[in-house]
Amino acid sequence: MDVTKIRELIKQLARLDYHNMYLNDFFLTWEKSEDEILATFTVAEILRGLRLQNISSRIFDSGLAISLFRDQSTRTRFSFASACNLLGLEVQDLDEGKSQVAHGETVRETANMVSFMTDVIGIRDDMYIGKGHTYMVEVAQAVKEGFLEGGLEQRPTLVNLQCDIDHPTQSMADMLHLLNSFGGVEKVKGKKIAMTWAYSPSYGKPLSVPQGIIGLMTRFGMNVVLAHPKGYEVMPEVEEVAKRNAAKSGGSFVKTDSMAAAFEKADIVYPKSWAPFAAMEKRTDLYGKGDSEGIKALEKQLLAQNAKFKAWECTEKLMSSTHEGSALYMHCLPADITGVSCAQGEVEASVFDRYRVPMYREASYKPYIIAAMIFLSKIKNPADTLGRLLEKAIPRIF
Amino acid sequence: MDVTKIRELIKQLARLDYHNMYLNDFFLTWEKSEDEILATFTVAEILRGLRLQNISSRIFDSGLAISLFRDQSTRTRFSFASACNLLGLEVQDLDEGKSQVAHGETVRETANMVSFMTDVIGIRDDMYIGKGHTYMVEVAQAVKEGFLEGGLEQRPTLVNLQCDIDHPTQSMADMLHLLNSFGGVEKVKGKKIAMTWAYSPSYGKPLSVPQGIIGLMTRFGMNVVLAHPKGYEVMPEVEEVAKRNAAKSGGSFVKTDSMAAAFEKADIVYPKSWAPFAAMEKRTDLYGKGDSEGIKALEKQLLAQNAKFKAWECTEKLMSSTHEGSALYMHCLPADITGVSCAQGEVEASVFDRYRVPMYREASYKPYIIAAMIFLSKIKNPADTLGRLLEKAIPRIF
Amino acid sequence: MDVTKIRELIKQLARLDYHNMYLNDFFLTWEKSEDEILATFTVAEILRGLRLQNISSRIFDSGLAISLFRDQSTRTRFSFASACNLLGLEVQDLDEGKSQVAHGETVRETANMVSFMTDVIGIRDDMYIGKGHTYMVEVAQAVKEGFLEGGLEQRPTLVNLQCDIDHPTQSMADMLHLLNSFGGVEKVKGKKIAMTWAYSPSYGKPLSVPQGIIGLMTRFGMNVVLAHPKGYEVMPEVEEVAKRNAAKSGGSFVKTDSMAAAFEKADIVYPKSWAPFAAMEKRTDLYGKGDSEGIKALEKQLLAQNAKFKAWECTEKLMSSTHEGSALYMHCLPADITGVSCAQGEVEASVFDRYRVPMYREASYKPYIIAAMIFLSKIKNPADTLGRLLEKAIPRIF
Repeated sequence: MDVTKIRELIKQLARLDYHNMYLNDFFLTWEKSEDEILATFTVAEILRGLRLQNISSRIFDSGLAISLFRDQSTRTRFSFASACNLLGLEVQDLDEGKSQVAHGETVRETANMVSFMTDVIGIRDDMYIGKGHTYMVEVAQAVKEGFLEGGLEQRPTLVNLQCDIDHPTQSMADMLHLLNSFGGVEKVKGKKIAMTWAYSPSYGKPLSVPQGIIGLMTRFGMNVVLAHPKGYEVMPEVEEVAKRNAAKSGGSFVKTDSMAAAFEKADIVYPKSWAPFAAMEKRTDLYGKGDSEGIKALEKQLLAQNAKFKAWECTEKLMSSTHEGSALYMHCLPADITGVSCAQGEVEASVFDRYRVPMYREASYKPYIIAAMIFLSKIKNPADTLGRLLEKAIPRIF
Repeated sequence: MDVTKIRELIKQLARLDYHNMYLNDFFLTWEKSEDEILATFTVAEILRGLRLQNISSRIFDSGLAISLFRDQSTRTRFSFASACNLLGLEVQDLDEGKSQVAHGETVRETANMVSFMTDVIGIRDDMYIGKGHTYMVEVAQAVKEGFLEGGLEQRPTLVNLQCDIDHPTQSMADMLHLLNSFGGVEKVKGKKIAMTWAYSPSYGKPLSVPQGIIGLMTRFGMNVVLAHPKGYEVMPEVEEVAKRNAAKSGGSFVKTDSMAAAFEKADIVYPKSWAPFAAMEKRTDLYGKGDSEGIKALEKQLLAQNAKFKAWECTEKLMSSTHEGSALYMHCLPADITGVSCAQGEVEASVFDRYRVPMYREASYKPYIIAAMIFLSKIKNPADTLGRLLEKAIPRIF
Repeated sequence: MDVTKIRELIKQLARLDYHNMYLNDFFLTWEKSEDEILATFTVAEILRGLRLQNISSRIFDSGLAISLFRDQSTRTRFSFASACNLLGLEVQDLDEGKSQVAHGETVRETANMVSFMTDVIGIRDDMYIGKGHTYMVEVAQAVKEGFLEGGLEQRPTLVNLQCDIDHPTQSMADMLHLLNSFGGVEKVKGKKIAMTWAYSPSYGKPLSVPQGIIGLMTRFGMNVVLAHPKGYEVMPEVEEVAKRNAAKSGGSFVKTDSMAAAFEKADIVYPKSWAPFAAMEKRTDLYGKGDSEGIKALEKQLLAQNAKFKAWECTEKLMSSTHEGSALYMHCLPADITGVSCAQGEVEASVFDRYRVPMYREASYKPYIIAAMIFLSKIKNPADTLGRLLEKAIPRIF
């Protein structure tokens, strides 16, 4: 991406209306307008362009970014760290477990106490249905109030690094990958994408990926198919979002319980395991009651249920039924690869291998998406500021 | 705070004598002269002013700050991280437990081995009477020698982030809050501040906060009352410091075992639980002997003793007895709030709630106090350097 | 070191041929040419000179450095952090244990997933014979491929922070200490260095230090003596390297089982404990089989074997037999000091004490050596870039 292209993107950005993102949070993609979503992609691409040109996009001379991971994370942790570092923020982990930053008053207080010089808070909390998103909103509200009441000198904005409902940094990175693979917004219109369940020998993979995908890709006029065995339903509210999106964008949203039907003539396939929504709700209840025996029993039952659907595997045969036999295979990684990371899993090794490079590229967009979210929430005139970064052209590596 | 005000503060700073702070440590507030204390407040306010004006006060282009927390910490950890980040230092945690950085030769060696590019060392070690301060002095001495002998290229200076004797970053932030709330050094003279014990259902809260408060506030001509039930004495040496300070500053230092007497007509109240000094000494001995049964028994005994003093609570009724019924309520946080964080605690919920915003502001000064301590120990001509930062006016956010 | 001296070093650097270090890894010193080794020393000295002149050598405006420590570390951790910070890189620890970043596909994937904005990866993996170096090569290969295939925008280069074969950042810091102590490359020629085993009450100290020393010091025309009791052999491959080096450089490489013979007329002594190579191989096998009983038995047997050689101690008496009774004593630290850190150990306290300051200086070179390795692998025209840093003269402390 050369300087001319970057200039063009900055001009495109200037034409979009995203003023509402300034000093605001990023929870769910469907709370954002079309222009706001496009602005995020555009800023991500501009930041990528600047870095490829060895131009610094360090907009913070100092400032902290807090990360709070309530679930183990390597990939998202490094994506967040990369994004913050790119912009000049230093990441500080808030390693609180579930005890100290817990309920009511304490969330408000702790959130404020760590935020005196904090510009961004990134949270991953995807383990319990009905909890993660609620917690993020509570933290964001607490520091917003702290700012408005004068306790904080700046408003820390929140970036959802995965909650129980959505995984916006993943779905946005995935979508940017599609835009760059197919050639832009006009080219993805009418394309068929199969978001489909796949068998995994492990238990309780989060729902936020399939939900994020159907909640976002339906906004681009795509034909989105959600496929899973009966019993593996996602949250009904998100299905409603997908339906509304499809109606508005001129695409479609269809459900099926056949992996083969989903793959048929698909342009893009996204086969991935997840846990049933109803079971995850039950687990949250059991967890709330401290019923560890109940949780163990549920886990056993779910693994047995999974095992009935070992045929849900992304095979070469299935791939050959896609559009021209060469649908773009996607995965948020890590995948359960048959014969590699498990005896039988989500995908045949040869399929996975063939798409390794594009998948790495898919993942490479995430730091830029996170950086774009931060940029748009912290900078008042992003197009102007990006233009000045380009002109100043401070080298990233001297 | 506008640029004119910042300029004025820089002029005030230039008139103070604080040359002895350069390349020196900050252990206890009473080891510092009046001018040195005032210089710290002034630099803290200038740094705050610069940040409010979006002006960078990044004086380090590179450099490490080591943090060593021998007690769990969230607030102080983030305050230290914020202060260091503001000035351009990167924090590296020294997570050694008590084994490797232990006794004699090893303290000297490890302190030097981690300090080759270290400008500041911040330590929190408040758990054991007679240990924390001693350890800090040992570390500071080790790296001072390392510097003088030529092993280190710069002298890392030590910031006491809480020891067994004093908690200077807390008491200084508290005092700056008073100065800003009441309108300056002249206005706090003659004000009555009640540093009083309060009931908590938990065990072993450090003495360094009340000690820090009576050791610092007595220097400002204030009438300082220390109130606690019999048996909750603080370190006698610090009481001596408070007496001497009061005599010199024209204030007073009085002790009482009545919370009501302390609150009567007080302008400021600071109700907070702490453990008795004698019991903490005993615990240190038991710990030294590895007598965990003895420690358990002591804990049980102290909780039973605490329970006799549940009446020591900061209630609305007590608050109404203060000056015009509206004393400034202070707390270092987190507080034990009756009916919120515990069944019965240090303060009634309605009192706490009314003062939440000022308390958050109180806490917000700590990063600036720490940054000021670092600034004064690492920069030879602080007034000059701050003036240059103001003129250069590099934006914190581009 | 003044500016004139720095300029001279930059000129010296420009005359060396080290183009092959650019975008390359640093695994073993003997894989590098003479010029590449000299270039590393020269850049280290230039960076040290710049810092002593308060001139920033921050070449990265943003960028991550990943550290992966498979063995506990304080000294190396802080050396790596210092080096990265000096150049402007932010360290992110990859704290994966042995499970997630494990074998085959996963190493490749994880290495790429964390490296989207990573410039350097530093790994310490010295615990198991045949594993550490192999693992580092695998990681480096994975990200090299990721870069070449287009998944990564830059190539992260690897710095070996200690493997089973070599400890290049240690041996290079040690050698730079010798060069500066004796007055340069010409002056160390013909000097006798005794790399000798010494008794320690602990078990399983890595072989990489003695191997690193004999693998590097033999390149400088020195007379290198490796002394150890029978049964404490190092890896035969590295002895072969040492022999070849000595033949080429005009020095010598001799083995002996007498500490006294090694010390006799030595100019430099490096007495240090290590575990026998054969035993370490056995331990790796036992570990692979999960035979923890076998490991315990082996440990017991090795400690008993060690105890037979308590006479292998660096005493004043032995020191007096060295050249003019004043050989330079070296140690990578921490040392087992008789009567200080253990009842009986590697060195008499009075010897250790006398050399404490030079040893601290020896250790102080490590951050610069690491920074030089990074510099040479990431900057295309190092002499030119260093010249520009010197001219620009941005202060490290404002």
